[in-house]
Amino acid sequence: MTPKAKPPRKTAAKPARRIRYHVACSLDGYIADEDGGADWIVDEPGIDFKELFAQFDTFLMGRLTYEPMMRMNTTGMGMSGKEVVVVSRTLRPADHPGVTIISHDLEGRVRELRERPGKDIWLFGGGELFRSLLELGLVDTVEPAIIPVVLGAGRPFLPGPEIQRYLTLTTHRAYPSGIVWLEYEVQAPKARR
Amino acid sequence: MTPKAKPPRKTAAKPARRIRYHVACSLDGYIADEDGGADWIVDEPGIDFKELFAQFDTFLMGRLTYEPMMRMNTTGMGMSGKEVVVVSRTLRPADHPGVTIISHDLEGRVRELRERPGKDIWLFGGGELFRSLLELGLVDTVEPAIIPVVLGAGRPFLPGPEIQRYLTLTTHRAYPSGIVWLEYEVQAPKARR
Repeated sequence: MTPKAKPPRKTAAKPARRIRYHVACSLDGYIADEDGGADWIVDEPGIDFKELFAQFDTFLMGRLTYEPMMRMNTTGMGMSGKEVVVVSRTLRPADHPGVTIISHDLEGRVRELRERPGKDIWLFGGGELFRSLLELGLVDTVEPAIIPVVLGAGRPFLPGPEIQRYLTLTTHRAYPSGIVWLEYEVQAPKARR
Repeated sequence: MTPKAKPPRKTAAKPARRIRYHVACSLDGYIADEDGGADWIVDEPGIDFKELFAQFDTFLMGRLTYEPMMRMNTTGMGMSGKEVVVVSRTLRPADHPGVTIISHDLEGRVRELRERPGKDIWLFGGGELFRSLLELGLVDTVEPAIIPVVLGAGRPFLPGPEIQRYLTLTTHRAYPSGIVWLEYEVQAPKARR
């Protein structure tokens, strides 16, 4: 039987927008190599990044993802004019003007962010933040772009320990480069078929 | 530019048949949970297992994959009448009549197996054997059936340490259950595009 798509866990208020973990990963489940590098990601001219970035007005990420980005010029990455939210206990807001820093009450702050009207929220990485938000039932979709490579080691797509969450496949697409783009909705825990 | 499919690394003799790592795995890259269990694999009536098994006449596996299978009745799994080859330093051939045991010279023995005429060879698992044969250039295709679940921990699809191998996507298919079946050819090492 084909399982019906199940909406993610709800709180009293239906979220106004979705939190989407969209990330490039290797076939064996790594989002960066052991040195944090991503030069194993192949080019794919067929992906319309402009259209992709236009779906989001907020970027949510951990410090380990944010810091290297800040060292680059991220305006070229389509983040110009968007809200950047960084989850970190150590960064000082005064040092990062224009950036929202969440240092405590992750669940309350992210839930509030999700219930605020707007476009979708791109959970930009990394795996640790995905892990925390998955446990809190605050990830709506998982959208890996699977690069045609195996790495054997690196920063995991989803760090341990064991957790079991079923997903509902909503979109799949293969590109000439061999990248396979998948989109899933996260099912509520224990929603076994 | 669309990369051309590259054949796997060749030895003097072109192999008569392919060694194919076909395995069910979670989206985050595990082939079994931490207890070795696979009850997270969803049913998919649309997969024609009879047709799949008919493509192979040899099953190649490690001891950790073989032993649980032997405790079940594997004739129902489509292995009846096929050659079963187990890589193990500890199993005694006398205890396993009808099974070929490779206890030494993995490279030579597997290469000889691949050069013998016949149908394809199913590298049935697990990840450690895949790892060893990938390093030896003896895996022709990687064919994950990605189950719509994340596990966070378990037996990895490809155990570490770091190794980088590019793949060429040849087939992709999505099923009503949400299973995504991908097939890749393994590129020779350093064959960067």
